[in-house]
Amino acid sequence: MDKLLYGAAYYPEYEPCQRMEEDMDMMVRAGFNLIRVAESAWSTWEPRDGEFDFTLLRRTLACAERHGLSVIVGTPTYAIPPWLAKKYPDILADTHRGRAIYGPRQCYDLTHPGYRFHCERVIRRMLEVTREYGCVIGYQLDNETKPYDTCSERAQGMFREYLREKFGDVEAMNREFGFAYWSNSVADFDELPDVRGTVNASYGGEYSAFQRRLVTDFLLWQRSIVNDYLRPGQLVTHNFDFEWRGCCAGLQPDVDQLEAARAVTVAGCDIYHKAAGELTGEEITFGGSVARGLLGGSYLVLETQAQGNFSWLPYPGQLRLQAFSHVANGAACVEYWHWHSIHNACESYWKGVLSHDLAPNDTYRECAEVGREFAELSDKLAGLSKENRVAVMVSSRSQTGLGWFPSCAPGKTPDKNYSDYLMWLCGSLHRLNVEYDIVWDAQRDFSRYELLILPCLYAAPEPLIAAIRDYVGAGGHILGTFRTAFSNEHLKIYHDAQPHGLTEVFGLTYDRFTAPEGAALRSDVFDLPRGSAASDWMELTELRGAEALATLEHPRWGAYPAVTLHSFGRGGAAYFASCFSPEALDAVLEGLLPSLGVPVPRERYPLLVRRARARDGGKLTFYLNYSGETLPLDVPPDAAPLLCPYPACLPPWGVVITEG
Amino acid sequence: MDKLLYGAAYYPEYEPCQRMEEDMDMMVRAGFNLIRVAESAWSTWEPRDGEFDFTLLRRTLACAERHGLSVIVGTPTYAIPPWLAKKYPDILADTHRGRAIYGPRQCYDLTHPGYRFHCERVIRRMLEVTREYGCVIGYQLDNETKPYDTCSERAQGMFREYLREKFGDVEAMNREFGFAYWSNSVADFDELPDVRGTVNASYGGEYSAFQRRLVTDFLLWQRSIVNDYLRPGQLVTHNFDFEWRGCCAGLQPDVDQLEAARAVTVAGCDIYHKAAGELTGEEITFGGSVARGLLGGSYLVLETQAQGNFSWLPYPGQLRLQAFSHVANGAACVEYWHWHSIHNACESYWKGVLSHDLAPNDTYRECAEVGREFAELSDKLAGLSKENRVAVMVSSRSQTGLGWFPSCAPGKTPDKNYSDYLMWLCGSLHRLNVEYDIVWDAQRDFSRYELLILPCLYAAPEPLIAAIRDYVGAGGHILGTFRTAFSNEHLKIYHDAQPHGLTEVFGLTYDRFTAPEGAALRSDVFDLPRGSAASDWMELTELRGAEALATLEHPRWGAYPAVTLHSFGRGGAAYFASCFSPEALDAVLEGLLPSLGVPVPRERYPLLVRRARARDGGKLTFYLNYSGETLPLDVPPDAAPLLCPYPACLPPWGVVITEG
Amino acid sequence: MDKLLYGAAYYPEYEPCQRMEEDMDMMVRAGFNLIRVAESAWSTWEPRDGEFDFTLLRRTLACAERHGLSVIVGTPTYAIPPWLAKKYPDILADTHRGRAIYGPRQCYDLTHPGYRFHCERVIRRMLEVTREYGCVIGYQLDNETKPYDTCSERAQGMFREYLREKFGDVEAMNREFGFAYWSNSVADFDELPDVRGTVNASYGGEYSAFQRRLVTDFLLWQRSIVNDYLRPGQLVTHNFDFEWRGCCAGLQPDVDQLEAARAVTVAGCDIYHKAAGELTGEEITFGGSVARGLLGGSYLVLETQAQGNFSWLPYPGQLRLQAFSHVANGAACVEYWHWHSIHNACESYWKGVLSHDLAPNDTYRECAEVGREFAELSDKLAGLSKENRVAVMVSSRSQTGLGWFPSCAPGKTPDKNYSDYLMWLCGSLHRLNVEYDIVWDAQRDFSRYELLILPCLYAAPEPLIAAIRDYVGAGGHILGTFRTAFSNEHLKIYHDAQPHGLTEVFGLTYDRFTAPEGAALRSDVFDLPRGSAASDWMELTELRGAEALATLEHPRWGAYPAVTLHSFGRGGAAYFASCFSPEALDAVLEGLLPSLGVPVPRERYPLLVRRARARDGGKLTFYLNYSGETLPLDVPPDAAPLLCPYPACLPPWGVVITEG
Repeated sequence: MDKLLYGAAYYPEYEPCQRMEEDMDMMVRAGFNLIRVAESAWSTWEPRDGEFDFTLLRRTLACAERHGLSVIVGTPTYAIPPWLAKKYPDILADTHRGRAIYGPRQCYDLTHPGYRFHCERVIRRMLEVTREYGCVIGYQLDNETKPYDTCSERAQGMFREYLREKFGDVEAMNREFGFAYWSNSVADFDELPDVRGTVNASYGGEYSAFQRRLVTDFLLWQRSIVNDYLRPGQLVTHNFDFEWRGCCAGLQPDVDQLEAARAVTVAGCDIYHKAAGELTGEEITFGGSVARGLLGGSYLVLETQAQGNFSWLPYPGQLRLQAFSHVANGAACVEYWHWHSIHNACESYWKGVLSHDLAPNDTYRECAEVGREFAELSDKLAGLSKENRVAVMVSSRSQTGLGWFPSCAPGKTPDKNYSDYLMWLCGSLHRLNVEYDIVWDAQRDFSRYELLILPCLYAAPEPLIAAIRDYVGAGGHILGTFRTAFSNEHLKIYHDAQPHGLTEVFGLTYDRFTAPEGAALRSDVFDLPRGSAASDWMELTELRGAEALATLEHPRWGAYPAVTLHSFGRGGAAYFASCFSPEALDAVLEGLLPSLGVPVPRERYPLLVRRARARDGGKLTFYLNYSGETLPLDVPPDAAPLLCPYPACLPPWGVVITEG
Repeated sequence: MDKLLYGAAYYPEYEPCQRMEEDMDMMVRAGFNLIRVAESAWSTWEPRDGEFDFTLLRRTLACAERHGLSVIVGTPTYAIPPWLAKKYPDILADTHRGRAIYGPRQCYDLTHPGYRFHCERVIRRMLEVTREYGCVIGYQLDNETKPYDTCSERAQGMFREYLREKFGDVEAMNREFGFAYWSNSVADFDELPDVRGTVNASYGGEYSAFQRRLVTDFLLWQRSIVNDYLRPGQLVTHNFDFEWRGCCAGLQPDVDQLEAARAVTVAGCDIYHKAAGELTGEEITFGGSVARGLLGGSYLVLETQAQGNFSWLPYPGQLRLQAFSHVANGAACVEYWHWHSIHNACESYWKGVLSHDLAPNDTYRECAEVGREFAELSDKLAGLSKENRVAVMVSSRSQTGLGWFPSCAPGKTPDKNYSDYLMWLCGSLHRLNVEYDIVWDAQRDFSRYELLILPCLYAAPEPLIAAIRDYVGAGGHILGTFRTAFSNEHLKIYHDAQPHGLTEVFGLTYDRFTAPEGAALRSDVFDLPRGSAASDWMELTELRGAEALATLEHPRWGAYPAVTLHSFGRGGAAYFASCFSPEALDAVLEGLLPSLGVPVPRERYPLLVRRARARDGGKLTFYLNYSGETLPLDVPPDAAPLLCPYPACLPPWGVVITEG
Repeated sequence: MDKLLYGAAYYPEYEPCQRMEEDMDMMVRAGFNLIRVAESAWSTWEPRDGEFDFTLLRRTLACAERHGLSVIVGTPTYAIPPWLAKKYPDILADTHRGRAIYGPRQCYDLTHPGYRFHCERVIRRMLEVTREYGCVIGYQLDNETKPYDTCSERAQGMFREYLREKFGDVEAMNREFGFAYWSNSVADFDELPDVRGTVNASYGGEYSAFQRRLVTDFLLWQRSIVNDYLRPGQLVTHNFDFEWRGCCAGLQPDVDQLEAARAVTVAGCDIYHKAAGELTGEEITFGGSVARGLLGGSYLVLETQAQGNFSWLPYPGQLRLQAFSHVANGAACVEYWHWHSIHNACESYWKGVLSHDLAPNDTYRECAEVGREFAELSDKLAGLSKENRVAVMVSSRSQTGLGWFPSCAPGKTPDKNYSDYLMWLCGSLHRLNVEYDIVWDAQRDFSRYELLILPCLYAAPEPLIAAIRDYVGAGGHILGTFRTAFSNEHLKIYHDAQPHGLTEVFGLTYDRFTAPEGAALRSDVFDLPRGSAASDWMELTELRGAEALATLEHPRWGAYPAVTLHSFGRGGAAYFASCFSPEALDAVLEGLLPSLGVPVPRERYPLLVRRARARDGGKLTFYLNYSGETLPLDVPPDAAPLLCPYPACLPPWGVVITEG
């Protein structure tokens, strides 16, 4: 992490003509110093069972060495060759939708012994080759690993053993999972029916948790193999990703990333964000916050868009803005996916730095500008750290819970899922220039934060609730939302006053909730936009000491608290009893955060301000213009420009960095 | 039926803690006098094949006896235990969507001999227990029984035998079903292909009719078992339900309820209606009318919502209004589903009287108010009867027909189905305070009614047409709509003038129809809302004696009759050649009904007026305010208030009952 | 082709009563001279395996002879009888959606040897009967033949052999199909995975091409059988159809019609067009242009709507307008589907000439008017030919390409597909009264045309590109759109400047493209409607000699060319870098076509003008009023009216024909 890495995933195996030398010349000219290779081409490295051919890989590594490019090698296990699928027909994942058909990547059962055998063999054979090359700075384990919804008899057998171990007594499981409902009780763990038919969210949700554990196990297993070939100083990473909501937005539901990150030495992630006219940068901020949280430091953006998918082509200036935004969030690496657009008829329109004509273009030229600046500022900008006062808690089990029980009438398609509520809050922090870390529901110590935000922390186990209570008692602040602490980790709903274990902390309770039917949101405290209204969910909250800072007004229900604040112990707790618009949220948080110990900067989106500490202890400030208009800029007089001289105003999509 | 029953379904087997004593104390305090138990918990009563454990059931019945609560016991056959699904893998229904997976309720093939064997055994073992308890006032057979779309080889074999018996000659079937179409003719009944592939609505529709017959057979079979344990005075019932259109709205397509009702001694039904801001009560009126029609008298509402599904939480006052609305329609029982909200992760958000905290709440308190009033008025209000002048005919085969041939261009999703058209008419009657009965297309004697309404009676067999003609000839009135009497009971379209057999009755015919493309609806007779327009369907009707009371005006088609009236014999017949808005329908019916022998009261929704005759012969009138506003009330001076003293105005969601 | 054929498909086998004599009497009275019979009734002709019964067919042919009706006999192979499906369970097509279930037509695997055996036997047995009847003027092979997505092991085995033959070397295939992507490379053709799982559009698209070839093979094979029974002068035809977009609109994706037309002696087609308030006639023009192009002359409309599907009932006058429109496009036959509406419960609402009452109706009466006029003008109007200056190229492989890679962001549903873009251009030509021919991408000689239009010619093989270049060089004109010449025939994207091989011809290139985000369309040359904007796709085009006649203006991208014109060799080339509204297209083409050698008539839709040459060399002009208003008409004084006397104005939906 002592220099900024900048580059692209590189796939010479896909190119329609031999041009490696020219490619790398062009990369060097653009200031690239990194490529990622090899992770997608198992059928190239092992065209027949047991016949290996690493000629192209050797040629690539040798060429990279000549060009001074660093290389991250990816283990090629996420896309299996046809012969492997033919050898073991049951290697294809048997899922909720039935048996996968060979063709797409990530179509296999990652618990299959044949898959594991061939994975290990190809990794070992490849790493015997790559260990010889000095340009190789490390390895990426697999690629965006998921459980691929494996529901094979093998996987479900492992799951039944897991349950037997977890509960011991089958009656304990029956009780905890509420299997009496609709006569689902079993007399033995072996009697458990196929998870794919269940309507019991405790059982179904536990299987999701078990599937996430398979990912952790798999990556740890790959790491143990890679360890045999690792040189001192080489890194091991993985490209963690996010929930896909048209782009990377929210918590990846299929991986316990905090657990799985134990398999790597440095966190990596893939950030595909909204672009062009929809670019706001909030996914860059969110993704970076997740990645920083995994191992607690700087991270690698292993994939992000260059031209990106159709309709994502960045406006002039946006590519540079995006690159510096990653760095401002603490990234030590910006790597595009991918170098050249694909001529093959698959992902052909997810375009790389180069277009299909493989010639320099405006995207390439803007990369070169970034490359020049990255090289110049590498010492200053590599490995930045953050000192944020705010943490946002994510919870896979809550995500599962809201998936089974969305915030809408049954039979309707929910407008928003867990990630949407998460991004609703994180997006507002982003716009208010309140930087945040991400913490996980498995963590218990939040003492370094002034404020812990709990978006829809639906499935809260007792120890976590206790930890939160203690944290507030000791002077911390929390901001909870509707549907928090409603069930335990098995989605079993608590049978006392809601929010369970936190009624004294929040100073309120409720025993009924319903749809707000457009109830007006009113406040004497916050400067709400006209016409603000509650949406999605409304708890009929009864105050037990808290103060209502905003209220819901409904023609039939009358007034109920919408936003409350309460002192508890030495700390404080705010609560949202309903959802409302992003604009209203901005107004609420602007007024509320100071009461929760968090000052709000005066700058507002589209002018983003990001602060970080350099490795030398220097304080850096990034000013990022997320608009196509020129913005006035008011930089402290004693701050030194890094991209000098910086203007008195920020041009469209412009970037200014100061030190001190 | 000599007292009002009031209570809830009660599931101690689901509760997260032991609190039966407290539950029943609370029930008694709320004026509950009834619980329904046991129907969902087969895996609790028989945790292993042949091992029975009725401890909890005994405890429940004993406790109910101590508390003076009546109990309806449900046979526990609608949700099979895992061991039974494991024992016979083919017990799971093989449907149009393939084999069901174990998990949800009602997933089995109800023709499976193994299912029947185990049903009978568990029923007998349970009733040996329950027969001992005086608190048990009767039994509910199964629960909302359906055919679950069984298409097993066994079921289809039975269907082929059914067809062989029905037609005798295979050529007769080929002809009647039009199997020549696309070469589907068969040489023998055994050659009939899997119904799941058919595009022939005669064949597919007949299978639907056969599936409905399976339900009747199953309930009659259960009744024969229950008979062996029945004490004098005990009732047998079943909770019939309705088509689900986001709530119970329309004819249940999968059951011939009139047939199936032969299995019970008193009709029961489940009414889940629109709620909160969408509450109109029309589903309460409709469901009650269906239930009254089944056995011709008072009925039990075996399930209805307390807090209900998400977004259904009743506004203050609505729960009481709903309870009295059921009674006003003739219900002798209002039973909530269910006592306590479910903590298990299944239907957890379909909330009961109690919320998850199991403490008294506003819903419980409003129940207690109802309980007090029900107790007070029980003698007066139990077992009311109706003397309606209007009947609305329902037809499962017409429903099937409109399902195969909806009122829209092919490839488009129809806006409305059969039940929507049915509710369109019934909703208007509801708003106009014209009370109606429901009759079935299997019935032939309508002489007790002034008016018989035929909503989209698409599939009308010849004898029914003759009966209708005779009814009008003898002085009755009918109101028919577009798409009536178009096909016979096998969806075979009649090949003479439409509406078949009724052209002389309606005094019109048509040979073409099309989409109305927004044709204007005009009338000199009715006070139509501005901008009234035809929708969905337009018959190009030619008058043969009828008078056009409203016309469709289309820029290219010109004017065609929309609403017509005709004298036939000693009676009269009105016809709608098109659909139009509910508001226009209200105006049309208001003007038209008097010409059809039916006076229209002067009160209008949201003020509902319902009349009934008490067991002692007294005339009762219910005034129900279906709005959140106070309404003026004009009660005859000689009517005696039952909830005394009644105000000169009706408060929001208020209820007034008078006698005399 | 020496007289106009007019009639209907006739299905006595479906009729609910015997009325053949009456039917044919009515036909004759309406001026019908043609029926098509027998193609749908295999189970009638062969009720049991090997038992044939052509009694009804003989009766029909004898009756037709008595009535002087010509008959086209269809081979009855598109709808198999139940016994055949039972005999060979694997005869049912195994498709992307799994194994078909018997019931609908066209559900079988047309490569199945059992299917072929029984096809041949029933055809030979039937033609042995029909050869005896003088009224039989020819045969229709099968019915709207498609591959029915057969993916059986047999079909895929044939496909692997086809690929082995095509590529010889497996590595050549790996390279060309880009199978390295996601490790899909194979070591042998036998290792190729099931096409149904592929994500590789080269492989998937080639299978589509192979499926289209199956159709050609099948029709050629049927032709070889029919040849054994053909009398001199008898015709062989097939009813080719079109992509179904709610009606026939665009290129039928599943058939190479130009190839398949080798199986017939006269082209036939089925044209179901928009109707009533949506009638524009553009599908009549398009379908006719395709049919004319197949064998280069007049054609038969073997099916078109009478009353048609629900909501299609023609306004008074439209049926006649439609009939003459077909003739104006060169049709020698207008045959309705079908004579009588179906009483059987299948396609019952796709109504024929007669309604279900089988009595004369307004549709029948309008047919009779047409029949009278057709008889009168038959000599003049039969077998017209066209001398169009404009050709529009269609390309099945481009259609496949746009199917895999639609013009929208991934995950979104594309608004428009290939056929929509095709109809966008053809619709505008239709409205501007610029008549066009259709040519196929397999053709190379376009010298008879002034202008060749290339709508989204995505997959352009090198020889076609060379032919286009040569055509322009020699003085021809082309009009190309966005996404043209982007990939080769295997959807492999060209890796040099776009549009590949045509940058010099169009005088421009581009290396990036994106969504236009509503960029304004501006022009000093064209009279664009206010608010014209780009849609769907925007190429960031750089001019290399071309002139921009219209530009795209985007607030962030600035201005880019939208419509360009360039001289190349002795010809010229225009290019559309974006899509825009139909109204804007009308304005652009009106201004642009003259520069491309094509004059634009002054008449505009809804007044259509169509010109044709009669067999005697006379020049005919059709004036067709596609509106419900009376239009002024300005006919040259020396033109002689055929439907005399013609008025000075065209009545709603009116037709005028002049000669000379």
